[in-house]
Amino acid sequence: MDFAFSDRVKEYQERLLRFMEEVVYPAERIYVEQLRDSPTRWVVPPVMEEMKAKAKEAGLWNLFLPDSDKGAGLKNLEYAPLCEIMGRSPIAPEVFNCSAPDTGNMEVLERYGTEEQKEKWLIPLLNGEIRSCFSMTEPDVASSDATNIQTTIRRDGDEYVINGRKWWSSGAGDPRCKVAIVMGKSNPDAPKHQQHSMIIVPLDTPGVRIERMLPVFGYDDAPHGHAEITYDNVRVPASNIIWGEGKGFAIAQGRLGPGRIHHCMRLIGAAERALELMVRRVKERVAFGKPLSEQGVIREWIADSRIEIEQARLLTLKAAYMMDTVGNKVAKKEIAMIKVVAPNMALKVIDRAIQAFGAAGVSEDFPLAFMWTNARTLRLADGPDEVHRRAIARLELSGE
Amino acid sequence: MDFAFSDRVKEYQERLLRFMEEVVYPAERIYVEQLRDSPTRWVVPPVMEEMKAKAKEAGLWNLFLPDSDKGAGLKNLEYAPLCEIMGRSPIAPEVFNCSAPDTGNMEVLERYGTEEQKEKWLIPLLNGEIRSCFSMTEPDVASSDATNIQTTIRRDGDEYVINGRKWWSSGAGDPRCKVAIVMGKSNPDAPKHQQHSMIIVPLDTPGVRIERMLPVFGYDDAPHGHAEITYDNVRVPASNIIWGEGKGFAIAQGRLGPGRIHHCMRLIGAAERALELMVRRVKERVAFGKPLSEQGVIREWIADSRIEIEQARLLTLKAAYMMDTVGNKVAKKEIAMIKVVAPNMALKVIDRAIQAFGAAGVSEDFPLAFMWTNARTLRLADGPDEVHRRAIARLELSGE
Amino acid sequence: MDFAFSDRVKEYQERLLRFMEEVVYPAERIYVEQLRDSPTRWVVPPVMEEMKAKAKEAGLWNLFLPDSDKGAGLKNLEYAPLCEIMGRSPIAPEVFNCSAPDTGNMEVLERYGTEEQKEKWLIPLLNGEIRSCFSMTEPDVASSDATNIQTTIRRDGDEYVINGRKWWSSGAGDPRCKVAIVMGKSNPDAPKHQQHSMIIVPLDTPGVRIERMLPVFGYDDAPHGHAEITYDNVRVPASNIIWGEGKGFAIAQGRLGPGRIHHCMRLIGAAERALELMVRRVKERVAFGKPLSEQGVIREWIADSRIEIEQARLLTLKAAYMMDTVGNKVAKKEIAMIKVVAPNMALKVIDRAIQAFGAAGVSEDFPLAFMWTNARTLRLADGPDEVHRRAIARLELSGE
Amino acid sequence: MDFAFSDRVKEYQERLLRFMEEVVYPAERIYVEQLRDSPTRWVVPPVMEEMKAKAKEAGLWNLFLPDSDKGAGLKNLEYAPLCEIMGRSPIAPEVFNCSAPDTGNMEVLERYGTEEQKEKWLIPLLNGEIRSCFSMTEPDVASSDATNIQTTIRRDGDEYVINGRKWWSSGAGDPRCKVAIVMGKSNPDAPKHQQHSMIIVPLDTPGVRIERMLPVFGYDDAPHGHAEITYDNVRVPASNIIWGEGKGFAIAQGRLGPGRIHHCMRLIGAAERALELMVRRVKERVAFGKPLSEQGVIREWIADSRIEIEQARLLTLKAAYMMDTVGNKVAKKEIAMIKVVAPNMALKVIDRAIQAFGAAGVSEDFPLAFMWTNARTLRLADGPDEVHRRAIARLELSGE
Repeated sequence: MDFAFSDRVKEYQERLLRFMEEVVYPAERIYVEQLRDSPTRWVVPPVMEEMKAKAKEAGLWNLFLPDSDKGAGLKNLEYAPLCEIMGRSPIAPEVFNCSAPDTGNMEVLERYGTEEQKEKWLIPLLNGEIRSCFSMTEPDVASSDATNIQTTIRRDGDEYVINGRKWWSSGAGDPRCKVAIVMGKSNPDAPKHQQHSMIIVPLDTPGVRIERMLPVFGYDDAPHGHAEITYDNVRVPASNIIWGEGKGFAIAQGRLGPGRIHHCMRLIGAAERALELMVRRVKERVAFGKPLSEQGVIREWIADSRIEIEQARLLTLKAAYMMDTVGNKVAKKEIAMIKVVAPNMALKVIDRAIQAFGAAGVSEDFPLAFMWTNARTLRLADGPDEVHRRAIARLELSGE
Repeated sequence: MDFAFSDRVKEYQERLLRFMEEVVYPAERIYVEQLRDSPTRWVVPPVMEEMKAKAKEAGLWNLFLPDSDKGAGLKNLEYAPLCEIMGRSPIAPEVFNCSAPDTGNMEVLERYGTEEQKEKWLIPLLNGEIRSCFSMTEPDVASSDATNIQTTIRRDGDEYVINGRKWWSSGAGDPRCKVAIVMGKSNPDAPKHQQHSMIIVPLDTPGVRIERMLPVFGYDDAPHGHAEITYDNVRVPASNIIWGEGKGFAIAQGRLGPGRIHHCMRLIGAAERALELMVRRVKERVAFGKPLSEQGVIREWIADSRIEIEQARLLTLKAAYMMDTVGNKVAKKEIAMIKVVAPNMALKVIDRAIQAFGAAGVSEDFPLAFMWTNARTLRLADGPDEVHRRAIARLELSGE
Repeated sequence: MDFAFSDRVKEYQERLLRFMEEVVYPAERIYVEQLRDSPTRWVVPPVMEEMKAKAKEAGLWNLFLPDSDKGAGLKNLEYAPLCEIMGRSPIAPEVFNCSAPDTGNMEVLERYGTEEQKEKWLIPLLNGEIRSCFSMTEPDVASSDATNIQTTIRRDGDEYVINGRKWWSSGAGDPRCKVAIVMGKSNPDAPKHQQHSMIIVPLDTPGVRIERMLPVFGYDDAPHGHAEITYDNVRVPASNIIWGEGKGFAIAQGRLGPGRIHHCMRLIGAAERALELMVRRVKERVAFGKPLSEQGVIREWIADSRIEIEQARLLTLKAAYMMDTVGNKVAKKEIAMIKVVAPNMALKVIDRAIQAFGAAGVSEDFPLAFMWTNARTLRLADGPDEVHRRAIARLELSGE
Repeated sequence: MDFAFSDRVKEYQERLLRFMEEVVYPAERIYVEQLRDSPTRWVVPPVMEEMKAKAKEAGLWNLFLPDSDKGAGLKNLEYAPLCEIMGRSPIAPEVFNCSAPDTGNMEVLERYGTEEQKEKWLIPLLNGEIRSCFSMTEPDVASSDATNIQTTIRRDGDEYVINGRKWWSSGAGDPRCKVAIVMGKSNPDAPKHQQHSMIIVPLDTPGVRIERMLPVFGYDDAPHGHAEITYDNVRVPASNIIWGEGKGFAIAQGRLGPGRIHHCMRLIGAAERALELMVRRVKERVAFGKPLSEQGVIREWIADSRIEIEQARLLTLKAAYMMDTVGNKVAKKEIAMIKVVAPNMALKVIDRAIQAFGAAGVSEDFPLAFMWTNARTLRLADGPDEVHRRAIARLELSGE
């Protein structure tokens, strides 16, 4: 047992932190302004592509993909502290080509895709040339129980025909988003967890219609966005199926592990930044005759925040370690645990920072307001807390 | 001791609930659409004025003003359960001319204003012809300690000259908003709580400049809005001072009592609606083989929500009762208590409803997402939790 | 709606508080010492009977029994604030003949007993000559679901024969305890909630054996005590059945209402005393250069305690009001709510007081340690929290 | 970074767990019975010395002492998972000579003692021949701020004269307890943190008087016990001073690190056992038609317990790692964090287990009731939560 990061990780941390200071933080405001000043919000602010080029040049690119010669060769445990740093800014993950839902989708293609699928979709994604979305959640059913998913994927000759309505296909608002991975029911008569498949659907396929973009707590998250999409007799080549018919749940389990833990890593970074901002702020402001930083209640907020961040970080690192050593499947309890822990921890820490900032905390002058609603959303995305708790309890009760 | 509402209150409740069903709820969507379809968001959707006319006609108008022949003659205790009903919809309070910050401002003018001030500003406000804002919070200091307020109000002959920067002047985005009540320092050499005054500033006075509208968790709250305003050598007649120089804190104490309790009443209504929506939703959705409504965890959410709402409601009613019987000043502990309780309670109840709704809960398809961020904001507006707790503790320790 | 206590209640409050100051508090230490110095702990300290005589003389006796000419003629709503005062000292309720489980048992006998049963058991109980216990919980099943109860009550000629094992028959350690009300299954073939009966069992009946006294968190609660009792072919006259065969659940519902609310009232008094002790203590102790009372964190404890007590009190009063106006059965949601609220509130308030007292708080030098464990126990006694929450949710979902 | 225990640790874990199963758990009841059947509770149940002999023989002895040839040669990080196992039973730590306050005292003697002091006191302690207590807390001041300590240690020729009143000198009830380490003020004119010293006081020195044994939540914790002791002109040789005059705080900092972390390790073990007992119990009991283990609320308790234990364990392990790598002083933030985390975590986990057990949970039939009150006490012992939070915040604010 050893709690020290390797020299390699430490060196990456240093480079990333420097890149954040020099490139990303200064661009946060520019990003917002470029978006505000463009005729529509559904365009990519030029500063993003500039930052991507710099990150690629700096060798800070595709750090997420373990066990593959296509990534940087980092294990999950090595990537975790780096992903955390990216989570400090809402615009950072994309800069390093490490943003959701792309990393999860790329993992799916790398693990389960055919060579042809990789060539066509994985390579451009890894190059940051295109982006992708993931169409799983449906508006008409409780998607927390994924067996409820009703979208159909029906074989018809050399093609599959897809029909259904999805929402929260995040990233579909981006003009660079070219492809969706869609989950649907292909084998209704198979055992419950073998009825569903995942399939690749280019977004320009006839029958794919973005109905609307969904705001999240008032944010449109443009140009990324969260789309409600109808799939109306959408036909794709049979070769677009991933791994095989009925493999939907098997892939989901594989996909959601990395996707979930990446979210958790970023949340830790967000919480860490919130604490940092709070510490700075409370030293500057005076109320009732002394700096906020000398008031007992504020000090308790700082202490509790440090305690909660540190615990969540350690559990996340352990989950990453388990994924590396025993595999995503055996690590499922640890992944479920951090998926409950990290968003709730971030909500608490960021909430305290907002409170310490006063009204400024709910405005857009600081990233706190956005981070807070984002943490709240992540108590639902990739499975609501209560479904993960349910899974943890089942494993405990069965002695696993 | 008696927990039954009077017949008069029950009758009002019935009429208000019917009005909500028949007029307000159906207009919620229209309001959003009219705003969306207008060239700018800073206009009043026509449906609002239509509803106001109906409410006035129905005698559901200005129910908030106790101890005055200008209101409906209801005590705070009678108004509380009615205000709660208005809190069920974000657009409702204005329909009945009972929205913030206007009710607080109207109370100030009624209690402390001159006849001239009442004639000029109170009457149009009571008629719903104009709206008002309240300029207290400042960006540069911790305004939770109001003695920090730095805006200056300097006497110069027959005028006062106002200089300073305010933000969170809510409502200033509304084209009908004609006047601000501004808090500033007029007597820097007086004892600490007698240095500040409140003064009436017409928004079209030269030197008043709206710098920007502040979003709250991604919401612009248009057309109401939250303005950052600079007052640059703004000159108003000396007769615009309210009550007298140095009376700022005395008025604030009087003003904030009603303003705070109105927010609390509305939050209870919001929480009640969230619970109602949750109860309906969980009966409709099925996960893991049974309706959500039959799952133990969901049932616990419902029970805890009912418990928390009921307790917050009773405490709010008691605070209203105290205001009626012993006055706003003696009731300050009760007012401080509900100001802590109501937003935190609403946050918890609405949070559970969001969780029960899944991703739909964070979207704009239901009022939950907005209500939740609004409740969060109210942990800061009119004084942050920790300042109210501080006041409660001081009263407990001094045996008051 | 009116939050003022009646003059009658205020006068009783004043008399009770004076009695507590003059008689009960000074006797707390004497009670402990008399118990410590006696050869066995299962005797009644003489000071108790002395206090009872004084309370009877002062007309502070049997205040609990509403709707009966045998009590003081107080409604539940009037009794609530008085019972609260009694809850301020662990030894007080018995002084006024208002202690558990006797008040609940007396209510059962008064509401459902025959004249003969009243004559024989209710009158001596009302006179404070004997005490009683209630044998419901069983060690071998989850008694939170009372339909699990397995003790049998079998008719045999003019007698009933009782067989079973009960525990947590509180009060059975007291030498004055002469009678148990026992719940058992008499009609196994009836519908689920009509299978059980309650029956009166004199403790000196052959076959009744106290197996052991159960400690609670280290306390033996002598001489009251919590007994594990076996009923081994215990024969009582058929006339000892209460109300009739199969009425067990109907009585339980009637009995548990008052019993539960009395516990809640007392818990509010305990919490109030804990807050009072805490406020006094923090003014006296200095740490890190200033009195604890001036430290922000301590102030927050005080404020939160006041807030929580006040809310729990109002909800308890409302439940009492409902019992008086619509009956125990219709008031079941309110009773369930306070049964969840009051012990949890008391746990939090007393916990903070303990923390403020430091190590003294966990000792026997102050009543805090005992009160805290007692509040914890009351999250289980008369139904665990989760069963009450379940009931509340069911009522909410069914629209009741 | 590596989350796997070393082979050496794993082997020790296995041996310890087997020893617990074979020797300790079966003796729990015997220990209680031997104590109950002896004429006084202040004797050592014979089974304890029998177990100690077995543990010594098994090489499971003095595992706690790092960086010394007198212990087993284990680092804190290696000892942590073993100490956790000992924490699973209240009687276990002493069996392995790893109980409080002896381990802390032995560390003090090993780190700061003279050869003579080690010979006389450390060796018999390491042999398990005698036991010790630690006299720091005082009844008359807020000892959470140790600078408040008033006991005097005055040099008089070749002796020191000690005067003062201490309480919570835990372990002083044990007939084998021969020595106290006493903290007192020796240099009142020195800088604040150099005024105090620690000194060795044999308990049979004239003037040492045990005034009474303090119960903790109803438990006397015999024969260990918690003593209130007066030191009345107690004279000890000057050579009994530890390290030197004015070194009290320096030693305290060194002593309390290990002492605190040992408590935390044991609390994790206690929580783990509570969860284990809960999981077993809920499978066996049925309520409302299905096993408790299939009820959603219970499942949530299990999941949350697992999550909280796991996080606390990782943070404790990290703190141990820091002590090993950067020293107790630099690790002070981590030590403060776990000192807040572990007792609060244990309280929550054990509380849920109690609730799942129903009334059995508060009895002595299971170790839960004792464990819960013990965890509560540890929110005060070795510094209350709020003082540790204060320390953490100070370090955060200063950027350490």
